[in-house]
Amino acid sequence: MHGSPATTNRLEAFSDGVFAVAATLLVLNLTAGSGSTLAAGLGSEWPHYATYVVSFLTIGIIWLNHHSQFDAIERPDRTLMVLNLFLLMFVTLTPFPTGLLATYLSSGANGHVAAAFYAATMLAMSIAFFSLYVWAARKQLFAAAIDERHAAYLVRRNGAGLLVYAAAIAIAFVSAPVSLCLCGLVAIYYLLPARAPAPA
Amino acid sequence: MHGSPATTNRLEAFSDGVFAVAATLLVLNLTAGSGSTLAAGLGSEWPHYATYVVSFLTIGIIWLNHHSQFDAIERPDRTLMVLNLFLLMFVTLTPFPTGLLATYLSSGANGHVAAAFYAATMLAMSIAFFSLYVWAARKQLFAAAIDERHAAYLVRRNGAGLLVYAAAIAIAFVSAPVSLCLCGLVAIYYLLPARAPAPA
Amino acid sequence: MHGSPATTNRLEAFSDGVFAVAATLLVLNLTAGSGSTLAAGLGSEWPHYATYVVSFLTIGIIWLNHHSQFDAIERPDRTLMVLNLFLLMFVTLTPFPTGLLATYLSSGANGHVAAAFYAATMLAMSIAFFSLYVWAARKQLFAAAIDERHAAYLVRRNGAGLLVYAAAIAIAFVSAPVSLCLCGLVAIYYLLPARAPAPA
Amino acid sequence: MHGSPATTNRLEAFSDGVFAVAATLLVLNLTAGSGSTLAAGLGSEWPHYATYVVSFLTIGIIWLNHHSQFDAIERPDRTLMVLNLFLLMFVTLTPFPTGLLATYLSSGANGHVAAAFYAATMLAMSIAFFSLYVWAARKQLFAAAIDERHAAYLVRRNGAGLLVYAAAIAIAFVSAPVSLCLCGLVAIYYLLPARAPAPA
Repeated sequence: MHGSPATTNRLEAFSDGVFAVAATLLVLNLTAGSGSTLAAGLGSEWPHYATYVVSFLTIGIIWLNHHSQFDAIERPDRTLMVLNLFLLMFVTLTPFPTGLLATYLSSGANGHVAAAFYAATMLAMSIAFFSLYVWAARKQLFAAAIDERHAAYLVRRNGAGLLVYAAAIAIAFVSAPVSLCLCGLVAIYYLLPARAPAPA
Repeated sequence: MHGSPATTNRLEAFSDGVFAVAATLLVLNLTAGSGSTLAAGLGSEWPHYATYVVSFLTIGIIWLNHHSQFDAIERPDRTLMVLNLFLLMFVTLTPFPTGLLATYLSSGANGHVAAAFYAATMLAMSIAFFSLYVWAARKQLFAAAIDERHAAYLVRRNGAGLLVYAAAIAIAFVSAPVSLCLCGLVAIYYLLPARAPAPA
Repeated sequence: MHGSPATTNRLEAFSDGVFAVAATLLVLNLTAGSGSTLAAGLGSEWPHYATYVVSFLTIGIIWLNHHSQFDAIERPDRTLMVLNLFLLMFVTLTPFPTGLLATYLSSGANGHVAAAFYAATMLAMSIAFFSLYVWAARKQLFAAAIDERHAAYLVRRNGAGLLVYAAAIAIAFVSAPVSLCLCGLVAIYYLLPARAPAPA
Repeated sequence: MHGSPATTNRLEAFSDGVFAVAATLLVLNLTAGSGSTLAAGLGSEWPHYATYVVSFLTIGIIWLNHHSQFDAIERPDRTLMVLNLFLLMFVTLTPFPTGLLATYLSSGANGHVAAAFYAATMLAMSIAFFSLYVWAARKQLFAAAIDERHAAYLVRRNGAGLLVYAAAIAIAFVSAPVSLCLCGLVAIYYLLPARAPAPA
């Protein structure tokens, strides 16, 4: 029963649904803002647009990489499914810190807290995604195509994101916008395709 | 027409959609709270985080088990589809009692009512899921692989959840947080994989 | 390109998504109500529960029958896809009249308007669904299995719902709750499986 | 791994989810309006119904054409997936300008800004969709069936929409309702099936 293509497909279908809904719910954070005119109000809402783009792209690239990874998994086990649930729990959480950060981005101490919470959510999402990869690699759930060296490269690539997110949490207490920029840079980095590592 | 793989797949696609949306809508209950600072406000919102985690994991494990079960069903009939609709009706309801319980968790009599309503929703969801299983077993809709003894084990396993949820309704009128903890324990129990029963 | 199984599958995937989201958004209409206690408030919200159940089951049965019908269609054409879009437009509208009817059910003239709007949405959904069926039958998009007599039966069965919804619009101006009950009866009627007609 | 049917299917599944959720979230913009009676309030909300229909049909036709296009693509590459993410980012944005335009349609200068923002979102969506097509054509990702002449026709057909949306942005500053009508006309134009071009 477990390990059939149907099982993988349905794991992906549920995950795709969660990714799609979480990405789309981000729009509910957007408002007309406040200002003497609509143009002024919308202009004052730039923190909402910035966080919208960063969160949407982050969810999007996690979806992209999730989908590359599960294409390569032939035998998902129960543990992988439970780890996937934890990943999805943080994905569904995303609209909440996104809205907070947009609201408080320029609000001094509150902005620092909001940015740290935002980066922490990104970090939690990345740790959950990374643990999925490590589990699948350790339990040899991947189809045969992935060799040792490429696996090591993928670990380094994923680890880079974890480090930057951790740095973004610390930097949040200095500058919320810089912290958000770091999270945006991670998204851009992962939009680039993974490559085979150079020979050592 | 009925009983083709396409039929099972589409039953699963609609169900996956409902599970994914209901799980993701839980985030709309989360707010910045109220406090002199954002950190204080967020800290005061712990009932929202606790109920969010319990509800998300509960929906997640019902999805997991729903998906194991339907993988094993080869010939869904009309009754199974209608029973599935009732299950999904309670799944979609979940964000509502989740929000109520988060709001009223520490509010005396109102908290007791909210916790009882929450546990009752969980119970209704479990009864609907259990009835799906019983119907499929009675009508022999499963592929041949499930033997009598294992079926009896699965009935006991599902029945355990029903009993704890029923207890959580009663305990809600003593302590809302304890009632929520019981519901959380059921989720953790079902996260563990089902095993074959020991020989009698 | 058109008419391949992939085309039918994707038409169904998009439709399933819309059905699932519309059904799940119904929960956003539910509130704690107003009353001296939460129990009293929740008790006063019964119109919300009644409309929730009727709308959820109606969307659910349209999904069920949509899925039976598209299983039988081998060659969807562009017109069928556009008709399907109109069906989905009314399906996505459903949470709006559902919320209105729940709010105004016992409010005299406003309740009559809300009930008429609700029944009119149901009628529009049914007409769109019926036109899908008629188009598919006329263009012979169905796989060979459906004979003339059974097609005529299905037309009568679908037509019955249209008549009752039309009656529910008229009756809305006499009694909003009776109008809602009629809509609920249609849902229950369609939950029963379609049968082959008796020989004439 | 990339280019397998599973990859295309999952790209479509995620996209279908985003299209379906964005289209369904439009309903959250609808309200009872304000008036001495519910009928008067609902009647005053016609800008919401007009924008709802235009946005729903626009998302629907982009879905329809997206689905025709991806059916014909056998080897999606990473760039195509990233371009698809940008398309989806504008699709998920749609409920926001839709709500703004409905609220401000008759509000003078604010209405002009709202209509320009609305048409600009449509334009961005179209450019993203068009760039998907151009990339797939240039990289020869399509299955062999599409000839040069038909490709040129499809470029003209897509380009027409871009021009009208650009015009709608300019006209927004003269008349918001006329700008909305132009966007609606584009939707109707694309509802008609693409045809093979006449020989030159």
